[in-house]
Amino acid sequence: MKLRRLNEDWVLKKILEHAWIGPGNRTALKSLSLGIGDDSALFRPQAGRQTILTCDWFLEGTHFLRDKHPPNSVGWKCLARAVSDVAAMGGKPRCFLLSLALPTSLTGHWLDAFLVGLRRASLKFQCPLAGGDTTRRDKILINVTVVGEAIKGHAVRRSGARAGHLLYVSGRLGEAELGLRLLKRRKGRASRKNPLIRKHLYPEPRLALGHWLASTGLASAMTDLSDGLSSDLMRLCAASRVGARLDATKIPTAQISPAMSIRGLDPLQIALHGGDDYELLFTVPSRKASLLPRKFRGVLLTPIGRITRDKRVLVVESDRTHQLAPGGWDPFRLRR
Amino acid sequence: MKLRRLNEDWVLKKILEHAWIGPGNRTALKSLSLGIGDDSALFRPQAGRQTILTCDWFLEGTHFLRDKHPPNSVGWKCLARAVSDVAAMGGKPRCFLLSLALPTSLTGHWLDAFLVGLRRASLKFQCPLAGGDTTRRDKILINVTVVGEAIKGHAVRRSGARAGHLLYVSGRLGEAELGLRLLKRRKGRASRKNPLIRKHLYPEPRLALGHWLASTGLASAMTDLSDGLSSDLMRLCAASRVGARLDATKIPTAQISPAMSIRGLDPLQIALHGGDDYELLFTVPSRKASLLPRKFRGVLLTPIGRITRDKRVLVVESDRTHQLAPGGWDPFRLRR
Repeated sequence: MKLRRLNEDWVLKKILEHAWIGPGNRTALKSLSLGIGDDSALFRPQAGRQTILTCDWFLEGTHFLRDKHPPNSVGWKCLARAVSDVAAMGGKPRCFLLSLALPTSLTGHWLDAFLVGLRRASLKFQCPLAGGDTTRRDKILINVTVVGEAIKGHAVRRSGARAGHLLYVSGRLGEAELGLRLLKRRKGRASRKNPLIRKHLYPEPRLALGHWLASTGLASAMTDLSDGLSSDLMRLCAASRVGARLDATKIPTAQISPAMSIRGLDPLQIALHGGDDYELLFTVPSRKASLLPRKFRGVLLTPIGRITRDKRVLVVESDRTHQLAPGGWDPFRLRR
Repeated sequence: MKLRRLNEDWVLKKILEHAWIGPGNRTALKSLSLGIGDDSALFRPQAGRQTILTCDWFLEGTHFLRDKHPPNSVGWKCLARAVSDVAAMGGKPRCFLLSLALPTSLTGHWLDAFLVGLRRASLKFQCPLAGGDTTRRDKILINVTVVGEAIKGHAVRRSGARAGHLLYVSGRLGEAELGLRLLKRRKGRASRKNPLIRKHLYPEPRLALGHWLASTGLASAMTDLSDGLSSDLMRLCAASRVGARLDATKIPTAQISPAMSIRGLDPLQIALHGGDDYELLFTVPSRKASLLPRKFRGVLLTPIGRITRDKRVLVVESDRTHQLAPGGWDPFRLRR
């Protein structure tokens, strides 16, 4: 690799070489009247839709480790995280912008594998690349902006929860955190066949579920679980000016086989505070609860508590009730 | 400042404390149906408009220096840079997303001053904050996404230049680069009264000019000068599949007073390769050239050359003609 070729236009060319168009995102691409290669991208909003805007950091050392996370997982996950915020509003992703900073030494194989993972996610989420910014940096820095759309008035906010509404989660909580712990424990790059590690490396935002909950009007409030149930539930409650009573026995925790030998870990604590699950947390007025299936396209939907007028968040365990403190991911607090 | 208060929600609260609404951006705010504090922002596109999307890195050590650039300049410039890409399409900014990573030690005075500069820019450019992401990091990392709008079919791309079109620039070139050199030379923080340093610290994107050139249909191609004339002109020519002949004697260089004592510097070289001016570079079909004023709202408009069928970019000086090589800012090339 010649040094003179290592310029920004060349990195851009490499990004462009990947086909961002496929059967998966051809529809979304119709919204893009101008893609990469100009000062800005041009996006054609659909009539009767609101535009959803969200961005997410994905930084080496903070959100992933260069020696533990395979580059195609970094590519997949940086987009999946941001797309999950669109799922949490009940919208559909339309396109994304990629801001990428990396060392010159990684513009070969690492960048190629990163782009393979990113492209897979782009096709899967029907969310083509529209533009971005690249620069050189000693650490890998990624910021992804996702643009989505929702039918006017259908986007589900965090602020719609009312006392008496039932609280639900999708999937099982704590799986991604357990996957991370397994990943860190192993030497070198860990097996991607382990379902917990897979959930940590290649999370699947609940797009279909979020869209269904929004379009049917079943969810009164919704957020995605990125920082952990304790942190994200408290944010939903704060936005809605309510509290909640969680039934600990009902929280769907990770199913750990003895062979996994994760000793000294309490699955409930990990379900309460573990991050990166990208499941949906949502509330449903009790009169509508009977309309919710037990599973939506194979994904478990579990009632785990109820919204209260009292603004505290309480966890009811079999023998005691205690107030929840946010123990999830917060970069400005010293780690637990 | 108590450690337990240094969490992400607190940084967010501080950002929210700044009034992002004022006489300057009340109109733009109407487009935002949901601002900060949810999973995503909701933006209401105007009928008959295309959405413009752009994002820009602004990284400590790469784009600014913590000990040289005052925090309010960092706040102003991170938004101005991204807004300039909207100006280059002839659009109007509507809102922005802020991704901010910083050390806990800077969440006091530094963050306050940063937000003052950012808010000033937000009001000036009529571009309110819609959302973002914050995290902790040893170095200051900023990424700004700006959402703008243009009337359908009016956005000016890089690709519309044709042989025979005249090439124009706004303002004077190289001023910001000279400002940076003055800033680096001085001990401590330099005087913001010096007009060259001001242009480097507080650039003013040419929003009104860009919008006028787009709405009148005068500009056939346009880009902003962020990386330097040599780099940005070559990108415009590549996108349009044309070349250009620059008349070096016509390039409006910085007016340097002897008192500034910048020795050994060639104003023409700095005008050709210096970055960060955020002036507009645009092409105009020759039959429309007589409609361009010499100045637009006090900003000089100068014809500096002509687009050619031959794809090289040539610089014609008084005694010689040579081919231009991009010498502007490119983070993946070793610095000149």
